[in-house]
Amino acid sequence: MPISLGELATRFGCDLDGDPDIEVRMVASLLDASPVSISFLTNSAWKDRLFSTKAAAVVLRASDAADCPVASLISDDPYANYARMAALLHPSPAPVPGVHASAVIDASATVAPSAQIEAQVFIGERAIIGENAYVGPGCVVGSDCSIGDDTRLHANVTILRQVSIGMRCIFHPGAVVGADGFGNAMTPDGWVKVPQLGGVRIGNDVEIGANTTIDCGTLGDTIVEDGVRIDNLCQIGHNALIGAHTAMAGSTSIAGSSIIGKRCMFAGHSGAVGHVSICDNVIVSAQGMITKDITEAGVYASSFPAEKVQEWNRKVARFRRIGVLIERVSKLEKGD
Amino acid sequence: MPISLGELATRFGCDLDGDPDIEVRMVASLLDASPVSISFLTNSAWKDRLFSTKAAAVVLRASDAADCPVASLISDDPYANYARMAALLHPSPAPVPGVHASAVIDASATVAPSAQIEAQVFIGERAIIGENAYVGPGCVVGSDCSIGDDTRLHANVTILRQVSIGMRCIFHPGAVVGADGFGNAMTPDGWVKVPQLGGVRIGNDVEIGANTTIDCGTLGDTIVEDGVRIDNLCQIGHNALIGAHTAMAGSTSIAGSSIIGKRCMFAGHSGAVGHVSICDNVIVSAQGMITKDITEAGVYASSFPAEKVQEWNRKVARFRRIGVLIERVSKLEKGD
Amino acid sequence: MPISLGELATRFGCDLDGDPDIEVRMVASLLDASPVSISFLTNSAWKDRLFSTKAAAVVLRASDAADCPVASLISDDPYANYARMAALLHPSPAPVPGVHASAVIDASATVAPSAQIEAQVFIGERAIIGENAYVGPGCVVGSDCSIGDDTRLHANVTILRQVSIGMRCIFHPGAVVGADGFGNAMTPDGWVKVPQLGGVRIGNDVEIGANTTIDCGTLGDTIVEDGVRIDNLCQIGHNALIGAHTAMAGSTSIAGSSIIGKRCMFAGHSGAVGHVSICDNVIVSAQGMITKDITEAGVYASSFPAEKVQEWNRKVARFRRIGVLIERVSKLEKGD
Repeated sequence: MPISLGELATRFGCDLDGDPDIEVRMVASLLDASPVSISFLTNSAWKDRLFSTKAAAVVLRASDAADCPVASLISDDPYANYARMAALLHPSPAPVPGVHASAVIDASATVAPSAQIEAQVFIGERAIIGENAYVGPGCVVGSDCSIGDDTRLHANVTILRQVSIGMRCIFHPGAVVGADGFGNAMTPDGWVKVPQLGGVRIGNDVEIGANTTIDCGTLGDTIVEDGVRIDNLCQIGHNALIGAHTAMAGSTSIAGSSIIGKRCMFAGHSGAVGHVSICDNVIVSAQGMITKDITEAGVYASSFPAEKVQEWNRKVARFRRIGVLIERVSKLEKGD
Repeated sequence: MPISLGELATRFGCDLDGDPDIEVRMVASLLDASPVSISFLTNSAWKDRLFSTKAAAVVLRASDAADCPVASLISDDPYANYARMAALLHPSPAPVPGVHASAVIDASATVAPSAQIEAQVFIGERAIIGENAYVGPGCVVGSDCSIGDDTRLHANVTILRQVSIGMRCIFHPGAVVGADGFGNAMTPDGWVKVPQLGGVRIGNDVEIGANTTIDCGTLGDTIVEDGVRIDNLCQIGHNALIGAHTAMAGSTSIAGSSIIGKRCMFAGHSGAVGHVSICDNVIVSAQGMITKDITEAGVYASSFPAEKVQEWNRKVARFRRIGVLIERVSKLEKGD
Repeated sequence: MPISLGELATRFGCDLDGDPDIEVRMVASLLDASPVSISFLTNSAWKDRLFSTKAAAVVLRASDAADCPVASLISDDPYANYARMAALLHPSPAPVPGVHASAVIDASATVAPSAQIEAQVFIGERAIIGENAYVGPGCVVGSDCSIGDDTRLHANVTILRQVSIGMRCIFHPGAVVGADGFGNAMTPDGWVKVPQLGGVRIGNDVEIGANTTIDCGTLGDTIVEDGVRIDNLCQIGHNALIGAHTAMAGSTSIAGSSIIGKRCMFAGHSGAVGHVSICDNVIVSAQGMITKDITEAGVYASSFPAEKVQEWNRKVARFRRIGVLIERVSKLEKGD
């Protein structure tokens, strides 16, 4: 579906410097773009790519427009505007209403007529699938789960039990929501399992990555608020609360009962131990580990960048003898 | 199924301070409990919640009983006793014997008559499913695997090949047991795969978390002993041995051929490199990394707690110049 | 299928010290081997196991041959030669051509006649399955994906969309390839999803571990070159490039747009942040985190080995006061 630059400018509130009647059909990188593509520039470091682009138009900041050899769609936030234009030009496929013959749906479940249920799906007792929802091949939606309108479960997702999911969410393959939290009581005879009786409540516009796991609550629910973005292979423990619009990159792990504020960002391999509370607008850098409450917004870190192993090992060895160094300084101070 | 406080006290060996004829139906947190619920108090820090609870009774230590406004079930180990009461009041659903029509079961497999095989299951050659076992929707039990009596595989679990699982185990969705270990021999032409020919042996009363992976042995078996608890997204390498009643929290990774003792505890994001041996009763803190044999029980650590990035970066910069500091001290010592 | 030591020696270019007519049927460890087994010795530290082995023959280096009580298959690279012999004696099962009745295959897909499609499989629009390929139970191969000749997808693998996979690859259960990368633009109203429009290209002879995730590119493709070996629970972000014959152990995480050279090795729980470039032949140790470009081959590290928590905490406390120590030294230098 081609769309004119004029219409893009109007729809997304950009200033157009160029011919409004040029039509585009797709997005592409500056280097790969053809005359039916729009592209974007968010980082002036890539300006050399701008000079040679063959795009029909580039979404960029006013300060970069003078350097643009083609039409400019000028925006204060070119990345977000590019994202919105890309979504318009490359929409997710609309669900094809209906239930595949191989899907198994419990008689007590409710599937909206406009929803698409793919092959090999299982939908359990009292589950509810909303309007225009898509349940991909191999997915399992267990008993007492509800999937909101316009939500997509890609293939092989497991929504286990007592999970409520809002509207317009996206779950990537292999994600597991509602499995038992990790609750065990030690006894002289070994662990006694603490029954995990709560559920999971997920808001609207949430995206959950491939093979990420979100456990049910022990008593009460694990909660993921509106607009949260969680990448692949992350773990959210029982009774955690992830505040609205917080984002977590790959392999982040939030232990049980921790409360994460709104608009936080966790970089890859980071995490929080259990029972901590983190305020809004906290950023945790890669491999950073939060071990106690955080009450002040800002960036937090606890990891070292890799360096050559010989140099690193030398530093580690010195670190291990830091007590001796302190003693040597104390001795000097005493004038011995 | 209501049960009286008197019967709970008798069955679990608690002292009851209250009316033995009061009946309860469920467990709940101190804050949410209603007069048909029991609750528990394990940490005196939450005593203010005790004062206002509406529970029928609270499981707690003798030292907290005087502060309890409702009936007390007094126990030396309230958490374990609460867990046992919760399991009694909220039992896991019993399997409904039978094989779903959509399940595919190899003719050479054996399924006990009391087992439940759910929709979209695949059971391979010579596999054995025990009495009262539950195999959830989308699970795969491959050739030469055996699932013990009363064991539950939640949805989309993969038990691949040559895996023996004991009784009363629980496997959460997406868990993978018996995939090839990571064995490769480097040659000038690239890696040559080392065939992974062993299996996996898992004891009784083991619980394995969602999307956790346990590889088969190269030669011989990977072993998980009785009572082990492994959380989500953990990795157990080929030929590892996990001792009885050891627990591992989310994203723990144990590399190949490592031997972990009994009753060890690994916190989140921790791990052990390959070919190490860890004795019984070792605790590894979050992000801790075991790199060599441990022969003494205790707590081991190797990670830093996160702090504000400006302060952290300053410390890292100083750490990097620690060699210079040592030289300055040496110079002072020499009286230069 | 028994094979003689003479034939093994000829086929794999070993020197045989022993009776060429002895036949073997299997591989085994030195300790478990029987007279119909071959075993191997790669590490002289295990030489005591050599002395007592009951194997028919042992693959080993010339320098160890004198100590071998049974026949020797002498090789400069006994581990790789053992691996090749093991593959000959224990071949992967050949696919049984055909499509299981429960599999669902889109009419526009192409499945080679020699391929095996197992139970509960879903194959989407325009997908292509090559000759002798094996698609295990519960796998999903989505639209516009192609699976090369002789490639095996074990159970419950998800190849989502626009993924091209070469020949002779192995994908372990739960692996997810082609899910959306983690691309979001922050706005005052929350995150706007950046459409992920690229695909994934995977070369020949690649092995991908259980529950590992490889995201599609944002624009352009994520690329995994020939011979790469990725272990379980690893994450490869959008538009990353993993160079030929690179190996990554469990729980490694490579963030988006990073370029990893050829023949690199990442140990467990290691990773690279986004947008870095790493040259060939780089080794990253366990929990090592690459934060900037690496242009020189070698070993890189950034993690500490665990030690007793009391000692560790003391070091951490001293590290936190390193600024004070520096001031004390400066004061001494000034002669105050």
